[in-house]
Amino acid sequence: MALIVQKYGGSSVADAESIKRVAKRIAEAKRAGDDVVVVVSAMGDTTDELIDLAQQVTPLPPSREMDILLTAGERISMSLLAMAISNLGVEAQSFTGQQAGVITDEVHGKARIIDVSPSRIRTALDEGAVAIVAGFQGVTQHTNDVTTLGRGGSDTTAVALAAALGADVCEIYTDVDGVFTADPRIVPSARKIERISYDEMLEMAASGAKVLMLRCVEYARRYGVPVHVRSSFSGHDGTLVCDPTDPEGAAPMEQPIISGVAHDRSEAKITIVDVPDVPGKAAKIFEVVAASGANLDMIVQNVSAASTGRTDISFTLPADDGSIAIAALTAHQPEIGYTSLQYDDTIGKLSLIGAGMKSHPGVSARLFAALSEAGINIEMISTSEIRISVVTRADQLDEAVRVVHTAFELDSTDEQAVVYGGTGR
Amino acid sequence: MALIVQKYGGSSVADAESIKRVAKRIAEAKRAGDDVVVVVSAMGDTTDELIDLAQQVTPLPPSREMDILLTAGERISMSLLAMAISNLGVEAQSFTGQQAGVITDEVHGKARIIDVSPSRIRTALDEGAVAIVAGFQGVTQHTNDVTTLGRGGSDTTAVALAAALGADVCEIYTDVDGVFTADPRIVPSARKIERISYDEMLEMAASGAKVLMLRCVEYARRYGVPVHVRSSFSGHDGTLVCDPTDPEGAAPMEQPIISGVAHDRSEAKITIVDVPDVPGKAAKIFEVVAASGANLDMIVQNVSAASTGRTDISFTLPADDGSIAIAALTAHQPEIGYTSLQYDDTIGKLSLIGAGMKSHPGVSARLFAALSEAGINIEMISTSEIRISVVTRADQLDEAVRVVHTAFELDSTDEQAVVYGGTGR
Repeated sequence: MALIVQKYGGSSVADAESIKRVAKRIAEAKRAGDDVVVVVSAMGDTTDELIDLAQQVTPLPPSREMDILLTAGERISMSLLAMAISNLGVEAQSFTGQQAGVITDEVHGKARIIDVSPSRIRTALDEGAVAIVAGFQGVTQHTNDVTTLGRGGSDTTAVALAAALGADVCEIYTDVDGVFTADPRIVPSARKIERISYDEMLEMAASGAKVLMLRCVEYARRYGVPVHVRSSFSGHDGTLVCDPTDPEGAAPMEQPIISGVAHDRSEAKITIVDVPDVPGKAAKIFEVVAASGANLDMIVQNVSAASTGRTDISFTLPADDGSIAIAALTAHQPEIGYTSLQYDDTIGKLSLIGAGMKSHPGVSARLFAALSEAGINIEMISTSEIRISVVTRADQLDEAVRVVHTAFELDSTDEQAVVYGGTGR
Repeated sequence: MALIVQKYGGSSVADAESIKRVAKRIAEAKRAGDDVVVVVSAMGDTTDELIDLAQQVTPLPPSREMDILLTAGERISMSLLAMAISNLGVEAQSFTGQQAGVITDEVHGKARIIDVSPSRIRTALDEGAVAIVAGFQGVTQHTNDVTTLGRGGSDTTAVALAAALGADVCEIYTDVDGVFTADPRIVPSARKIERISYDEMLEMAASGAKVLMLRCVEYARRYGVPVHVRSSFSGHDGTLVCDPTDPEGAAPMEQPIISGVAHDRSEAKITIVDVPDVPGKAAKIFEVVAASGANLDMIVQNVSAASTGRTDISFTLPADDGSIAIAALTAHQPEIGYTSLQYDDTIGKLSLIGAGMKSHPGVSARLFAALSEAGINIEMISTSEIRISVVTRADQLDEAVRVVHTAFELDSTDEQAVVYGGTGR
């Protein structure tokens, strides 16, 4: 008998019919003899509707009240799901984040989980019930205020509960069949990845793959929770994210060098022109940017022109953070001593990810050759042990993903029925 | 500086515009220097929509899950209302039933309040904030399960909080101008009652007046909370329900004998034919009916026919309880020894209520004369110290209410703009 945590996103519980379908799947898992804990998001568009209501009332909703408002969504879906399961003759009880013991810090709207004390979930399981838990929400330690976990919050709830309960696996049900070697909307021949290590999945998530959020993967890696990403619309196995040294998650005999190609269209590039090439200037620049609250990604410093003693520094960041970074740099122009700023949000980032590249030389050469042959210019490069990222023009990004996917022999030879879309929270 | 508890029903917060209107009224009360606690129901049709969703999922929703589902409604309205008030520059914080310290028993769907420990509400008031509290909901003492209080639950929440906080008044805002001498839809000349005692209001509520629920008035009387029933659509004073010996609520010089005429169309009559007229039979009958869970109202036993030693016993009960009572009586026919049962749900009940009738003889004579003159037959009669109720044919009930209202000189001489409707929960 295993203990399974299942998480269903908003699209899997969009209406009464979907809820009944999901209930059937849960009841089957329970009848198969496993203990089942289910984490559920709000139904379909509920969250957007609640946000819309708030905006009708005030342009600046206080974050504490916004959290109370939004958590109504999971309260509705979790109780309906528990009812639907009970209707199939399987005992089910629903629990709010607070009742499930999800304790968070006090940062409304993007709270971090501090502790999970799922004693009531344990009791429900011991009584033979399926436990349904509201995703995305928790409660503060001292004031019992309701918090939300921000984007990807329900996935994080599921992984955190799986860790606290010592679950055998955390199944993340979504509207795609798993993690793919590239976005199938761009690369129709993309293949589903059977197994991927936490490290590779982290790089995929950080590089723009949307199927799992970064913090959820971080949490899973820290606590060694195997995560199975799969579709709620089919019975197929999806992608298992796990520790490659774990016997359960042992890599297949022929571990491919490259796991996949991720892409990201949400970044912008800022270039700071003619920065005096003296020690401390770069430090000052990134201190200013960090203080503004903007998140930096890639950084490139050109070789200094010997004649002027000045250099250009470029970096990328989420386009959403662009205006605050520009404002901060502008305010500090006298101290930094640059001549001008350039802002470019028509860039795209391609990332090639694979644990195998550590031990295989020539990966970057092959990447650059493929892009060069396709006439795609590389504007920036950054690497980690298991990732190479390049910045291209935004309008060349899709083509770049396709040629790289082919160059690394990731293309499927099968016809696959692929469903791919975004995930909810 | 006074401490005011205000309660707004679902029709007062039906959409974003209504919420903003109510927020303005609350902000004005706060700016006038009073401490303000607001109890709010779910928006307009939210509850019905949630019930509909549950019914799409299962015909028999478990009551614990139903309570979690329904309480999402107040969570939405309370947070939106807090946002709308904040938007007017007045600090506001919302609290769930649990956060407000509303402790109940464990009877899901119609829980009773055991205790109210509003320490967080106190703190919010001390910090200068308006406290918004979700009506209709509480939490069980030991398991922290969410409960709902059943019909009229939000009014009861408001009165219970007012009692626990020692509030100066509990204002119940609704879509009518107050308590009327009769339902203005039936008697267009009905007058708004300025002041009414707890006892009279209890009789009104028990006799079918829907503006305040019985248990809310019971709670107010027990703790001596003055209740002001008024419209959220106007600035007029409504009806003050209070202790007549309270100087604040002192009766006007000319206390009318009669407060009003209530009516009730929701009852049915069961007649048990040819019951042996021996001791213990009536006791047995009402023991059987009570054990079925049906609520009895009026009881009439005819004079025994000397020739047969048998009698008929009639009683009224909520029509909703009719089938369970019939089933119970049928099952016990051999023991009771009656010959047949008659069921009649085409009856109406008229009740005349007034503390003054205690000391004024002739009230019942005047009532019977008025009905007789109008050709209306009386089928059953019951009385208390401050109430006389009669059962008539259902299709004569409206006419009965009008002639009695006129006979006791309750008709208004003014033109009044009257808005009247049902209340939410």
